[in-house]
Amino acid sequence: MRTLILGGDGFCGWASALRLSRKGHDVYIVDNLSRRKIDRILKTKSLTPIKSINQRIYTWNKINKKKIKFYNIDISKDFKGLDYLIKKIKPDTIVHFAEQRSAPYSMKSIESRNYTITNNLITNNNVLYSIAKNNKKIHLIHLGTMGVYGYDFSKYLIPEGYYKAKLFIKSNVINTKILHPASPGSIYHLTKAQDELLFQFYQNMYGLKITDLHQGVVWGTNTNETLLHKDLCNRYDYDGDYGTVLNRFIMQAALKFPLTIHGSGNQVRPFININNTADCILLASENKKRFNKVNIFNQLTETHRLINLAKKISSISNCKIQHLKNPRIENENNTLIAKPMGLIELGLKPIYLSKDFLIKEIEFVKKYLKRADKKKILAKSKWKIN
Amino acid sequence: MRTLILGGDGFCGWASALRLSRKGHDVYIVDNLSRRKIDRILKTKSLTPIKSINQRIYTWNKINKKKIKFYNIDISKDFKGLDYLIKKIKPDTIVHFAEQRSAPYSMKSIESRNYTITNNLITNNNVLYSIAKNNKKIHLIHLGTMGVYGYDFSKYLIPEGYYKAKLFIKSNVINTKILHPASPGSIYHLTKAQDELLFQFYQNMYGLKITDLHQGVVWGTNTNETLLHKDLCNRYDYDGDYGTVLNRFIMQAALKFPLTIHGSGNQVRPFININNTADCILLASENKKRFNKVNIFNQLTETHRLINLAKKISSISNCKIQHLKNPRIENENNTLIAKPMGLIELGLKPIYLSKDFLIKEIEFVKKYLKRADKKKILAKSKWKIN
Repeated sequence: MRTLILGGDGFCGWASALRLSRKGHDVYIVDNLSRRKIDRILKTKSLTPIKSINQRIYTWNKINKKKIKFYNIDISKDFKGLDYLIKKIKPDTIVHFAEQRSAPYSMKSIESRNYTITNNLITNNNVLYSIAKNNKKIHLIHLGTMGVYGYDFSKYLIPEGYYKAKLFIKSNVINTKILHPASPGSIYHLTKAQDELLFQFYQNMYGLKITDLHQGVVWGTNTNETLLHKDLCNRYDYDGDYGTVLNRFIMQAALKFPLTIHGSGNQVRPFININNTADCILLASENKKRFNKVNIFNQLTETHRLINLAKKISSISNCKIQHLKNPRIENENNTLIAKPMGLIELGLKPIYLSKDFLIKEIEFVKKYLKRADKKKILAKSKWKIN
Repeated sequence: MRTLILGGDGFCGWASALRLSRKGHDVYIVDNLSRRKIDRILKTKSLTPIKSINQRIYTWNKINKKKIKFYNIDISKDFKGLDYLIKKIKPDTIVHFAEQRSAPYSMKSIESRNYTITNNLITNNNVLYSIAKNNKKIHLIHLGTMGVYGYDFSKYLIPEGYYKAKLFIKSNVINTKILHPASPGSIYHLTKAQDELLFQFYQNMYGLKITDLHQGVVWGTNTNETLLHKDLCNRYDYDGDYGTVLNRFIMQAALKFPLTIHGSGNQVRPFININNTADCILLASENKKRFNKVNIFNQLTETHRLINLAKKISSISNCKIQHLKNPRIENENNTLIAKPMGLIELGLKPIYLSKDFLIKEIEFVKKYLKRADKKKILAKSKWKIN
């Protein structure tokens, strides 16, 4: 299996690239290193000391049978470069992580909003066009988000991508299956809902094979593969824009700081472990299901109310909980019922968040505290304009 | 009423700008003249000899009480320019025509696809952000398209933007109102469906006042206002990319050429006269309805099966009908039932396509035939890739 991984230098991309390589895929990473560049712009960095992409791959190729190749291409700007590579490599599968993935960053300014929209939609359009042009049998696996669903209809188990529906117009009733109505909570989430329309379009027009993985918040740092050598260490984001809620709590616990929560903390969010993310990419790439429509899977293993997560970590670490003004415009009392039905069917074995993991992760983080810039932990991006 | 018209140099924008100016609005046109630039790139031009934007406005301001001002700003690239203008002018209403509006052009190449996506979404995001930043009471009127609906559910009268729906998940039923599921037929139409998600997002987050007009194919050339002086003449596109089907037939009839139809001609399309377009913009801008959601109006007055239109023009002109291979990937046997319910309620008086109009329009076009480049009439953009 020949697999192109777009955004393979990022947090989920790197973990997935190594997993597929270890499982025998010929892996080709494409990345413009934009995540490292944004770190420089925001004057922050991964808590863990990650190696350069060349060093990472050099080390991996020394210890693993299958070798990874790397191409530095900005696929949002260089269609020809991407297209040439797809023609040359002839991948069976393209895994697409190459989007700007921070909700707070996407709300920061008009520039970061526009960057997120352009980058995310144009990378997608370039990939889809090149697949339609070169080989319609290439399977595109895209990383979407559970956040496209929103919380309007999440009181009952969220179906995977599509709803059975009756549409009413006067006395006429249309029985149909529709794409889940989108209700995104940030520009980042919005682009993923717009991506969905792109997928529907290219699938309808050109019969492409597409899987859209609606992922939750990823926790954990390393995977079975990144632990094989210190050079392979995965990134750990803790800053206000790219650090996700659980990483922030763990970092604050390690620093013996108050655990900061945005608003009431009654928000429920979906979660998945980084090892399970890599599992899901492998399972999706081996899925032989028919593709008469875009396959959508909900890629989470559990949901948590944020205040309960904070309490759990507080009881372990003895840190207080501090409520801050919520920088988001959101319903803080949402309900969210969701399960990874399709991925379980494909063979996913869920890893659940445990007290044991939290204790170990706090210890892991403590090793790198001298690299931490405490001023970067709190969120500064706001949803309000002005 | 202070009204900013984005894209006010274009076919519908110019007609609407003059209408609002005559009706007493203080009109400010913003345009980057991209439509004229695309003409140069495609080596084509309006059949009618349109004047430069400065000449047009100079003449209008000589004969009309209210004066129009013009600003050359590319609002897809220059957020600051747009934002400064909105702050300075303090408009009550912004009418937004400033998107790439040709479906064939949007399918021509990877470059034209990406241009359409970036231009259309970023102009919108810049406008919405600036409204949210400066004054949330500004009413945004956006030109969308009937094409977002697609033909999956168009056997019954298409509702305006929203469906009453029941969503089913196992034994649970959710009674709700949802945005009409999108099924766009080109990248151009896709961007308008993606625009809809942007509107929902900004309305939910910031409570903006937004009207989205889902327009059909516009016929006719001049309006009561553009006819007041030869310098005010509106553009007439007849080329394969920007010329719409009725204009092509009229042009071919004037040239005594066969009327070319794509595929069977069984396609049904929505239509509206250019005078009615200007009416609708005026009516929407005076609408005092509450804006607790994005207002969506279907802006068409009638639907026609294309083969019937061709037959009508053939009977007038004695030109034969010639079936060409359809450059689009589409269902040629669609049904489309739609009416301008909301706009009729606001006071729209529909102008219907008549034999009389067709005869007059063919005569009108004949005056300019020496400006025509016959090689440009047939469509060259294809939906297929390769």
